Amino acid sequence: MLKEAIYHRPKNNWSYAYDRQTVHIRVRTKRNDVNRVTLIHGDKYDWHRAGSEQVEMTRFAQDALFDYWQAEVKPKYRRLKYGFRFHSGTETLWLNEQGFHDREPDSPNLYFEFPFLNPADVFKPPAWVKDAVFYQIFPERFANGDPSNDPEGVVPWGGVPQYNNFFGGDLQGVIDHLDHLQELGINAIYFNPLFQATTNHKYDTEDYLKVDAHFGTNEKLKELVDACHARGIRVLLDAVFNHSGRTFAPFVDVLEKGEASRYADWFHVRKFPLAVVDGVPTYDAFAFEPHMPKLNTENEEVQRYLLEVARYWIEDIGVDGWRLDVANEVDHQFWRKFRDVVKAANPDAYILGEIWHDSLPWLSGDQFDAVMNYPLTEAILDYTVRGTRDGRHFADLAGTLLAAYPQQAIEAAFNLLGSHDTPRLLTLSKGDKRRVRLASAIQFTMAGAPCIYYGDEIGLDGGQDPGCRKCMEWDEERQDRELFKFFAELVRLRRGHRALRDGSLEIVHAEPGRATLAYTREADGERFLVALNAGKRKASLSVNAPLSDPQIVFGEGEAKVLGRKLHFSLPPLGFAIIRLS
Amino acid sequence: MLKEAIYHRPKNNWSYAYDRQTVHIRVRTKRNDVNRVTLIHGDKYDWHRAGSEQVEMTRFAQDALFDYWQAEVKPKYRRLKYGFRFHSGTETLWLNEQGFHDREPDSPNLYFEFPFLNPADVFKPPAWVKDAVFYQIFPERFANGDPSNDPEGVVPWGGVPQYNNFFGGDLQGVIDHLDHLQELGINAIYFNPLFQATTNHKYDTEDYLKVDAHFGTNEKLKELVDACHARGIRVLLDAVFNHSGRTFAPFVDVLEKGEASRYADWFHVRKFPLAVVDGVPTYDAFAFEPHMPKLNTENEEVQRYLLEVARYWIEDIGVDGWRLDVANEVDHQFWRKFRDVVKAANPDAYILGEIWHDSLPWLSGDQFDAVMNYPLTEAILDYTVRGTRDGRHFADLAGTLLAAYPQQAIEAAFNLLGSHDTPRLLTLSKGDKRRVRLASAIQFTMAGAPCIYYGDEIGLDGGQDPGCRKCMEWDEERQDRELFKFFAELVRLRRGHRALRDGSLEIVHAEPGRATLAYTREADGERFLVALNAGKRKASLSVNAPLSDPQIVFGEGEAKVLGRKLHFSLPPLGFAIIRLS
Repeated sequence: MLKEAIYHRPKNNWSYAYDRQTVHIRVRTKRNDVNRVTLIHGDKYDWHRAGSEQVEMTRFAQDALFDYWQAEVKPKYRRLKYGFRFHSGTETLWLNEQGFHDREPDSPNLYFEFPFLNPADVFKPPAWVKDAVFYQIFPERFANGDPSNDPEGVVPWGGVPQYNNFFGGDLQGVIDHLDHLQELGINAIYFNPLFQATTNHKYDTEDYLKVDAHFGTNEKLKELVDACHARGIRVLLDAVFNHSGRTFAPFVDVLEKGEASRYADWFHVRKFPLAVVDGVPTYDAFAFEPHMPKLNTENEEVQRYLLEVARYWIEDIGVDGWRLDVANEVDHQFWRKFRDVVKAANPDAYILGEIWHDSLPWLSGDQFDAVMNYPLTEAILDYTVRGTRDGRHFADLAGTLLAAYPQQAIEAAFNLLGSHDTPRLLTLSKGDKRRVRLASAIQFTMAGAPCIYYGDEIGLDGGQDPGCRKCMEWDEERQDRELFKFFAELVRLRRGHRALRDGSLEIVHAEPGRATLAYTREADGERFLVALNAGKRKASLSVNAPLSDPQIVFGEGEAKVLGRKLHFSLPPLGFAIIRLS
Repeated sequence: MLKEAIYHRPKNNWSYAYDRQTVHIRVRTKRNDVNRVTLIHGDKYDWHRAGSEQVEMTRFAQDALFDYWQAEVKPKYRRLKYGFRFHSGTETLWLNEQGFHDREPDSPNLYFEFPFLNPADVFKPPAWVKDAVFYQIFPERFANGDPSNDPEGVVPWGGVPQYNNFFGGDLQGVIDHLDHLQELGINAIYFNPLFQATTNHKYDTEDYLKVDAHFGTNEKLKELVDACHARGIRVLLDAVFNHSGRTFAPFVDVLEKGEASRYADWFHVRKFPLAVVDGVPTYDAFAFEPHMPKLNTENEEVQRYLLEVARYWIEDIGVDGWRLDVANEVDHQFWRKFRDVVKAANPDAYILGEIWHDSLPWLSGDQFDAVMNYPLTEAILDYTVRGTRDGRHFADLAGTLLAAYPQQAIEAAFNLLGSHDTPRLLTLSKGDKRRVRLASAIQFTMAGAPCIYYGDEIGLDGGQDPGCRKCMEWDEERQDRELFKFFAELVRLRRGHRALRDGSLEIVHAEPGRATLAYTREADGERFLVALNAGKRKASLSVNAPLSDPQIVFGEGEAKVLGRKLHFSLPPLGFAIIRLS
């Protein structure tokens, strides 16, 4: 066995409380190197009297280099001491905190510890997120329901989106089209920023406590939230706390008064007076954007202000959570306070960080519930759309991601295929809607809440910003109603079967160099096979499967059982979701 | 190169802010597998304009399986994107967040990120700890300075310690013997619990706001603290916040009133009324000890109470920090609040957790400054005292520990060779004082503050508790004054040379099967070689060393330079600290 490949370190994603009774213990070994892994565990103060127990660990994920094993334990007294035993064909090896041993350690003293399962430390994202299907709305471009609040110089609906133009989208427009969303079947909306700001994207906040006048009023937002709630739709707002806008009153004051401003410490100023030298502001900013000065979230006044913002929209307006812009550039200490305030206002509020990278430091229960799962986005797009990743390569990355976080973070992940920050799925697919469907089929059969970017469901296209921020198409003649039906069915399917949401996942077919992929998902006695063909030719494959009457519940292709094998064929760029039992 | 051995994951001990300007980046490779590692880094928003920089990484630690590499970077805009390049003799390999690549990735997009160096997240233990030498006092057994406060039935000083007997040690006794401590040269005292409690060890607190009447009064403690401060000695108290004692008023109330008690939620009661069934209390306790009921640190009243305790002794009495008993069984959320309160009371207060195991989850800057470094204790004792670990084996474990935490946690570690919870060093050494000296020589030339357990410096012996809690010997005739001189000299040496405290460490000799070990420590242009022989025969060895005039500043043996080698010989169980430049 390759000792260098074996990894375990207590807490984080390797040992954590899944709920108030259950601890998950994980360990990593080299891919296909170890046959069996046994967890040896007991109460640390009762080992010598009650002895230890042994649990076979399950290989729950696999990637290019490693196998990942997991066991679930419910320690009677909420304390755990544990070690691992590894078997290969010829070798047995023990691992404890001191390293490897050729025979079982005499004493449990140097075993690993999960010292105590304290409820306060249990990472508990809101349960509803597992069942959610999100829809992302860029409010300036969704629907113009109230022309009276249009900005000056508004461009006619459907024109070419530019960095700086306005089309008049607003909250009334969203209220007017809730039927569309309900028909699609989504049950949560994520709104790009709604607060007073100068740009069309509103990421340059001027007033965090006021809905932008061109979108409506705070009361209008409350009306919208109430209307959504009445339809079982939750509402997530965008919190831009990393930086404010150029016109945020405290920043205006610092611009005017410099060091003498009472808000001088609200920002990270390197040198007064504020200036931009060779394209670099003399103060920290988002990137080098002078109009987006970074807020000093260590300043207690700034904290009080932003935490009141966090509380107000949840408690007074009733929104169901926050998406946090540029979340990883804000200090962890601030996010811990933020979580306390948000969860006090509503324990069921969802806290979603915008992080494009590995996010473990934010996903241990003290900060975010989840992150925007861009690494999965990229894996899906590489496999289904760009064709740069084969089935095995996709499966490997999915395995890495599955093992990277505590299970609850995976279940609460926000899985998107595009957003206001990326080219649209249809455009990446070069207009080939088979690829759109293929990508979405994976997105909707993975753990984590899928999100549809507004318009994707009716065939909107568009390249990188500003192209991806086109006006929504409301003329049904110009909508792709077939695609809409596809998405509505996909949503219905996912929402109808827990197995597709938080069931166990097993990759049953993923081979290097092949564009096919198959995995099963299982929960509550229901088992589905998801089979995909990202290749341009028809593909046939077979997988081991229990005798059953396979039924294609969605997608295309043929499936039949021969002996103990399930054989099926898929058209080019096609997929099938097959119910196995 | 063995890919499976290569490990990096952002934050924790792998990438962290060392101070407000500096980020440490680390990566792990298989032992002796890789010749060079280069860090490629740049500003994430400026990469395409300003490009990237390359830094050669230093192999700063090595253990049985791995090499550990580190680079220090001061990112101009406090943001960092980075990847690694590995060279072996024949191969070059790149690593970014997506895994390994045979050629340099085209784009930095998928490089690792250290998103922003926020000062609030910088882990900053108090600077004084690096320079501290601690002395641990078990107050009931150090000195009886005031017989008027003796408990009833006190046993004459110097009798056999039992679980339940009392000898009358008190705070006045400590005040009376500060000269002894000053002569020894220590500059910090760690006191076992001082608060009102029923046992002789006082780990069963009755009143957290009152010095035990048999030890003195709060005023007497203030007098002691002031007297210590006047001599440049800091004072650390023991906070037993995991559990209270049986006689703690809220627990008495719950015992009496059961579920109806207003303190019912102050504890973790599984079943009312409180009882002990088959040796197991119906409430959570420390281990299964009915007299030590676990406190519910999630309850806000409990939090307020304990946080006021934390504040009071620091702010009103002037103590310099807290040692936290059974620290890993209390929830992380509580410790974060605790840190806020303690650091607000005194930013220079030291927070030291009692954790015997891997402690990374507490050492990221939001909870503790350090832990009691028992893994190092065991490594030193195995090598110098028990003879169960050879020089190489010791060096390997020291390497593992060095890489396990951020550097500041290593610098602030609390390095002990024994305590009230372990047999005494002299007893483990079976009376052989050469082993005591050998172990101490390592302890005092490692990063982290060494601590002398009271009496070890004059030759006190004693087995596992209660043996290790003997009365201090104050009759100089019966003290080992030679040993005292040894310790005083060792303290003086460490305190006199920064190289021995927080200098860089390099193992220069450690071979499997040999009992010898040598390492250098270097800082401020000073360089020392520490050479040890844990074997029972005289040993000779030579190491590469710059031409210099080696001078044995402490210990025994002979050293001379021949060519580019330093040759030296050490007596059995002997050591030498050699100044190289």
